[in-house]
Amino acid sequence: MTAPTTLDSVLAQVDQNLEQSLNRLYELLRIKSISTDPAYASECQRAADWIVSELSGLGFDAAARPTPGHPVVVAHAPPAGGTHVLFYAHYDVQPIDPLNLWHTDPFEPQLKTDSNGRKIIVARGASDDKGQMMTFIEACRAWKAATGSLPVQVSLMLEGEEESGGKNLPAFMEANRDELGAADIALICDTDMWDRQTPSVTTMLRGLVGEEIEITCANKDLHSGMFGNAARNPNQVLAEIVASLRAPDGSVTLPGFYDDVAEISPELKAQWQGLEFDEKQFLGDVGLSQPAGEQGRSVLETIWARPTCEINGMSGGYTGDGFKTVIPSKASAKISFRLVSGMQPEKIRAAFRKHVQDRIPADCSVTFTPHGGSPAITVPSEGIHLRQALDGLSGEWGKQAVITGSGGSIPVAGDFKKILDLDTLLIGFAHVDDQIHSPNEKYDLESFHRGIRSWVRVLATFAA
Amino acid sequence: MTAPTTLDSVLAQVDQNLEQSLNRLYELLRIKSISTDPAYASECQRAADWIVSELSGLGFDAAARPTPGHPVVVAHAPPAGGTHVLFYAHYDVQPIDPLNLWHTDPFEPQLKTDSNGRKIIVARGASDDKGQMMTFIEACRAWKAATGSLPVQVSLMLEGEEESGGKNLPAFMEANRDELGAADIALICDTDMWDRQTPSVTTMLRGLVGEEIEITCANKDLHSGMFGNAARNPNQVLAEIVASLRAPDGSVTLPGFYDDVAEISPELKAQWQGLEFDEKQFLGDVGLSQPAGEQGRSVLETIWARPTCEINGMSGGYTGDGFKTVIPSKASAKISFRLVSGMQPEKIRAAFRKHVQDRIPADCSVTFTPHGGSPAITVPSEGIHLRQALDGLSGEWGKQAVITGSGGSIPVAGDFKKILDLDTLLIGFAHVDDQIHSPNEKYDLESFHRGIRSWVRVLATFAA
Repeated sequence: MTAPTTLDSVLAQVDQNLEQSLNRLYELLRIKSISTDPAYASECQRAADWIVSELSGLGFDAAARPTPGHPVVVAHAPPAGGTHVLFYAHYDVQPIDPLNLWHTDPFEPQLKTDSNGRKIIVARGASDDKGQMMTFIEACRAWKAATGSLPVQVSLMLEGEEESGGKNLPAFMEANRDELGAADIALICDTDMWDRQTPSVTTMLRGLVGEEIEITCANKDLHSGMFGNAARNPNQVLAEIVASLRAPDGSVTLPGFYDDVAEISPELKAQWQGLEFDEKQFLGDVGLSQPAGEQGRSVLETIWARPTCEINGMSGGYTGDGFKTVIPSKASAKISFRLVSGMQPEKIRAAFRKHVQDRIPADCSVTFTPHGGSPAITVPSEGIHLRQALDGLSGEWGKQAVITGSGGSIPVAGDFKKILDLDTLLIGFAHVDDQIHSPNEKYDLESFHRGIRSWVRVLATFAA
Repeated sequence: MTAPTTLDSVLAQVDQNLEQSLNRLYELLRIKSISTDPAYASECQRAADWIVSELSGLGFDAAARPTPGHPVVVAHAPPAGGTHVLFYAHYDVQPIDPLNLWHTDPFEPQLKTDSNGRKIIVARGASDDKGQMMTFIEACRAWKAATGSLPVQVSLMLEGEEESGGKNLPAFMEANRDELGAADIALICDTDMWDRQTPSVTTMLRGLVGEEIEITCANKDLHSGMFGNAARNPNQVLAEIVASLRAPDGSVTLPGFYDDVAEISPELKAQWQGLEFDEKQFLGDVGLSQPAGEQGRSVLETIWARPTCEINGMSGGYTGDGFKTVIPSKASAKISFRLVSGMQPEKIRAAFRKHVQDRIPADCSVTFTPHGGSPAITVPSEGIHLRQALDGLSGEWGKQAVITGSGGSIPVAGDFKKILDLDTLLIGFAHVDDQIHSPNEKYDLESFHRGIRSWVRVLATFAA
């Protein structure tokens, strides 16, 4: 067990060097590593090289390994024994447009004070995900500075394509399965705290199946005066298909959709009730008052532990100003399913396609375009690493850390399980108001500072 | 009765002067009277002035009368007694884009030979509606040249806003009700022949009610991971509303929708059967094989004599390339109803709005924007003017003229009845392949030449 005095000295190290830590984060934030835009490919390489240099300076065996896209940084600390953690984050960022809505240069980080008097770091990537990534690296630095080594075995895998589809990472993990899979547990730092006082470990993430359908009826656009009633209208066909996906009780109608969905345990249900999640406020903040999902379940359960089907986009015919009496040839929709533990993406995709195909009139046709498919992930709630992480976080924040789900999807978590057979703990210090993917992205200075301290403590609990 | 020798001399006049008639049409076609684009307002005025000059030269008392939009040309021939006809056409044209698909300058008319060896006049407005308009004016010219006067009393009302909504014409007709309503019958030249051998008088036109709805759920776009299941998705709400508008048997479900719809008479049904309309080919030409309207009725009946509801446009959420997991704040649709005789536009609009409003969740909202409303028109099939017009057309084309319906809507025909208490005969010489509203619009030289001859004969039958 790490003696309290050691831990205290590492934490003191963090506090004393906060300004230098911040300056290092600023250096990284100044690198314009927009992964989706080929014009910034060299900036992505520069970000990877910068990280390699930092990690090498801390004694890691680090390299920016090539992929068909942007490099993956892999780093291993010298052998230390004990729990072996594999830390994941991403060094690429979202594009910055619309640039005119930024109050300061997105790539010139600024320390500001927000309207609540909180210190915030403003820059593209401050929260997502460079700031979060640096909490872990700076925690390692503090351990190294205070004790000369890390308390557990640490490896890192830092990717540069998370914001642009991450298509190359699974193959990279496959190709380096033995090396990466030697870890005991994966850590992902890309999520939020429960609230400003309460740290959390996210153990459930929904999976995702995206599908685009395009329905074709006539072989060209028709005049609705001339053909109205005679010609099948693809907007009508599409609407009937979309409407058929949800029952009046809010459930999804695809045959077999809920077959592999388990009820959450009474313990988890009780714990979630303890979060005192305010449904009224959650919906009220966006102008709504009535939960739309399955009746008889809490909002938290429907977004964390129940699958959904959402129509993300729908279009057909004339959608400009004014009016045009057209019966279009085509109509299309982008539809996504969020999956929970146990559901198989390809089974859901096949059920959806059959459901659609069965509703296409004989003289019409449909094409399907897949947009991603990843299973949900669930970390067993009785694991020792989870308990240790909760302890470490609770120690830092002075409040019991909570176990949360997330309605979103982080495909790499599924790949850790599928390819490397690793469970994942998702620990992050971001907040819902961080404006990620938007202008004026920020990271609370407190998130950065106490995030570093949190990792110092979590690594200590892993070593206990 | 007009003696055959007189008629022959007028027809000979038409044939001898065809080239000059064509040159006059070309002059009008060169005027860029695009009514919807304010940049062409002076061209619309120029077209009106050109027509006034032509009609004045034929002895008409003609003027381009101002409206809040483009002028209406009104012209009266000197008093002649007998049947008084009020001829309607429009001098404005559709925009020309996409310009790159035109093979020649849209405003530099060309006489070409098409792939079937037919002579065609190619220009914007050649068919819709300058070519059709000039068939009547040139028929008047031939009567005047051959006999010194017209065989019946003739007035013209030629508008310049048909292609941009025609918002000012009803008020103009109201304001000049006594003057315009003095006629016995209205003639509209803006329709097709039944086929290249068979002239037709269109006596049934469907009416139109256009509505745009916009459904708002959340007050901003949401992330479908975070809110999927909890937040109402307006795409889903819209799809359910649209789907609810049609029953599986193809009928429209609005309460009371068919209340005022009469069955067509057995005589009309028999006559339509005699047209030997080829449903298979009608649908097959656009890539379809299954009629979409009410079961148990012929395609011709469903497009001419049955109302319909068509979704002309539908959109919500992300519709660009790729995928975005958004739950949009809003979704919208443009929906039109084609009405048949007896149906009241505002009653249908009210029934639709109630149907939609009843399906909007309590915490969501909908706005409605009306886009036009006009009743169907039906000309009594036993009228003397109808019989005379059929005789005149049959005499020119050597084949019995037919009585047809049209699925489309020509609101002015409803206004003739409502405001001026005039029945309307729709007689035109266009063809379905005229590419109206599209690049490379054309009018068959035969339509122009025999159209003029047809009007010469129809005016003669009215004088009989």
